[in-house]
Amino acid sequence: MKNPSTYPVSARGPADHDVRSQIVAAATEHFSHYGYEKTTVSDLAKAIGFSKAYIYKFFESKQAIGEMICANCLRQIETEVSAAVAETDAPPEKVRRLFKACTEASLRLFFQDRKLYEIAASAATERWQAVIAYEANLQKLLRDVLQEGRLSGDFERKTPLDETVMAIYLVMRPLLNPLLLQYSFDYAEEAPAHLSNLVLRSLSP
Amino acid sequence: MKNPSTYPVSARGPADHDVRSQIVAAATEHFSHYGYEKTTVSDLAKAIGFSKAYIYKFFESKQAIGEMICANCLRQIETEVSAAVAETDAPPEKVRRLFKACTEASLRLFFQDRKLYEIAASAATERWQAVIAYEANLQKLLRDVLQEGRLSGDFERKTPLDETVMAIYLVMRPLLNPLLLQYSFDYAEEAPAHLSNLVLRSLSP
Repeated sequence: MKNPSTYPVSARGPADHDVRSQIVAAATEHFSHYGYEKTTVSDLAKAIGFSKAYIYKFFESKQAIGEMICANCLRQIETEVSAAVAETDAPPEKVRRLFKACTEASLRLFFQDRKLYEIAASAATERWQAVIAYEANLQKLLRDVLQEGRLSGDFERKTPLDETVMAIYLVMRPLLNPLLLQYSFDYAEEAPAHLSNLVLRSLSP
Repeated sequence: MKNPSTYPVSARGPADHDVRSQIVAAATEHFSHYGYEKTTVSDLAKAIGFSKAYIYKFFESKQAIGEMICANCLRQIETEVSAAVAETDAPPEKVRRLFKACTEASLRLFFQDRKLYEIAASAATERWQAVIAYEANLQKLLRDVLQEGRLSGDFERKTPLDETVMAIYLVMRPLLNPLLLQYSFDYAEEAPAHLSNLVLRSLSP
């Protein structure tokens, strides 16, 4: 591979996006194998075959790379969950799929496929921007499902919507948040069904 | 203090219980200040003023001392929670108190008063006997409250009781289990009310 650190900085343009994606893809691969915490930008540069200086032209720190990996990962969970919810028209079934898809996607992305747990844990502990946006998006999705169910008459309307969203979000948290999910493996199989059934009983008009 | 390691082993008798309690009390104090993981039995012996050999006459390992501290701590939470639940006759109010008392007692005992978090975390991770017994007792208490509410007509009876107990226990878990509770401080104030209200809506006949 040509050493990209010899590219002139002034050459930045549309191709920058590609280089950033390339760094993120290689870093994701590297962190998956060697962990996020212990890897330095130097290790990463060596592994990718870029110079450290070149990486710093695109990302100001290891965390900036981690944040992009994390954002990609959370966006994928969001996409999977939205797709699962959109597959059905019935609001109660949407609630069930929300619980199931959230748990399955989180387990797979944080703990199995890519071993991104360390990045996800740092992100959750330090409340990176991507995490805040992700939580807001999931709450928005939940709120939309609840509103739909209230309109269709499937769900009760007495409880203030904000309160219902908050309470259900708290019920889902151990299945979403990687810090909590790591201690919930024993329950991960059955918890989504148990919890979504309880939530559906709480929503009955 | 007279060096107790000079006591003959054959003198064991009713006083053993007192010595064990004395070691546990001193160890609780010591672990509270210096942490459980990093303290060795030698450190502990020095701090208490007993010989290491003498401590080993009463406890086979540091974990055996930790288990007794943990069992005492969990017993205290259980006592507080049972008392809070017994203060009212109305099953729905019992559910509210169960959530509130569990959270408050766990926060105080694991994280504030005695800094017993490290012991509680080891106990929860390794599923010590005391933890298994504690979880079973809390589930029993929950089951009794639910059964009472089913009899009084406050709670629905359609859902199998085992399923209801399991689902509500899963909702309570982040407020009980020290490994999860450490990541729930931001919600600890409002979560018990939000979650018990949701649970009560799910129980309505």
